[in-house]
Amino acid sequence: MARAPKGLGMITVYGFSPSGNCHKVRLLLEQLGQEYRWIEVDSSKGETRTPEFLAKNPNGRVPIIELDDGRVLAESNAILCWLAENTPYLPDDAWQRAQALSWMFFEQYSHEPYIAVARFICGWTPLDSPRRADLPRLRERGHQALVVMERHLSARPWFTGDRYGIADIALFAYTCVADHGGIALASYPAVRDWLARVARTPGFVALPDPDATAAALIAQS
Amino acid sequence: MARAPKGLGMITVYGFSPSGNCHKVRLLLEQLGQEYRWIEVDSSKGETRTPEFLAKNPNGRVPIIELDDGRVLAESNAILCWLAENTPYLPDDAWQRAQALSWMFFEQYSHEPYIAVARFICGWTPLDSPRRADLPRLRERGHQALVVMERHLSARPWFTGDRYGIADIALFAYTCVADHGGIALASYPAVRDWLARVARTPGFVALPDPDATAAALIAQS
Repeated sequence: MARAPKGLGMITVYGFSPSGNCHKVRLLLEQLGQEYRWIEVDSSKGETRTPEFLAKNPNGRVPIIELDDGRVLAESNAILCWLAENTPYLPDDAWQRAQALSWMFFEQYSHEPYIAVARFICGWTPLDSPRRADLPRLRERGHQALVVMERHLSARPWFTGDRYGIADIALFAYTCVADHGGIALASYPAVRDWLARVARTPGFVALPDPDATAAALIAQS
Repeated sequence: MARAPKGLGMITVYGFSPSGNCHKVRLLLEQLGQEYRWIEVDSSKGETRTPEFLAKNPNGRVPIIELDDGRVLAESNAILCWLAENTPYLPDDAWQRAQALSWMFFEQYSHEPYIAVARFICGWTPLDSPRRADLPRLRERGHQALVVMERHLSARPWFTGDRYGIADIALFAYTCVADHGGIALASYPAVRDWLARVARTPGFVALPDPDATAAALIAQS
């Protein structure tokens, strides 16, 4: 899968390192061998709501990428699609590309709002946060997403076609840390095998561990 | 924009007519002049949770499309991308295509979960539903999405490039009925002008009005 950079010039990523959505972009850039620089923007401290950041992304979210000429692209999965175009990480076949997109929309609608949000509440909100009342519902919905993934992976090694690609990257981002939100993967052997396969792909880089504060909160959640 | 069908054969749509996500697919099929048949699946009555439907889409959601050979594609915005490929409804330029995707991910993550869900609660749940307690938060978040749209549309006629396309279709679906969820468009003149432009595109078909039961609930919400 290793290949020469696409000649896109220097790409600047504005991202928050503990965020799975941001890590998706880093993982693909590393695997593509694409030159980039990373500007840390701590969304948990309001750094995506400054006038400077809102001028780049009026929706106030990371990640975004910025090209040499100042053009900006927002939304992690749209960034993956753009970077992966004409690489082995996005299928050539139109139907398979549509299936990759289908899994990426599944990820943003039926997976991330539960699995990522449960993790965020456990690790990045105080133990007495009223948001913790949402955890049972978020965990239930997270398990529903994992059941769908387990069913797919029971018959196939990857989410699209016969090789690893951006649908795998999108779904890996928060599945690999589902336990941080109290969502155990014990009942999903095919998902666990797939996580291990993704971690063995060339150029793989892991999501950083939570810092000590987040780790302590997660341990008590 | 009118053009000959793409030669995709007969496409079967499984959809719930009052759903904006489902209507997106109908609108593009009509505008493409693509032959299709529509099978009504009432998700408000559990018809997406039957074994027969789950065999087609394990995630239990409409819309899905099914080809003559039985292949299935889920997720409204992935369906739009597949249908629009090589048509004027999806830009040729890779960067503009990525921007279209970016708006479509925005729609599913930052818009639909608030504007569509507020509408669903107002029209399709009882007046004493505990879900109605969520309405203030959903409306607040819905307005945040509209502010982002208004800012974009204040300077440009469409969501991607210089013409109408699938990002407009995706965002139109629930913006045009935001008021059903108690989200008024009075403060968003550019959004209202854009809604009117979309409604004048060739082949446009409107989302059906809510039935009498839903309309009565909306009027009291």
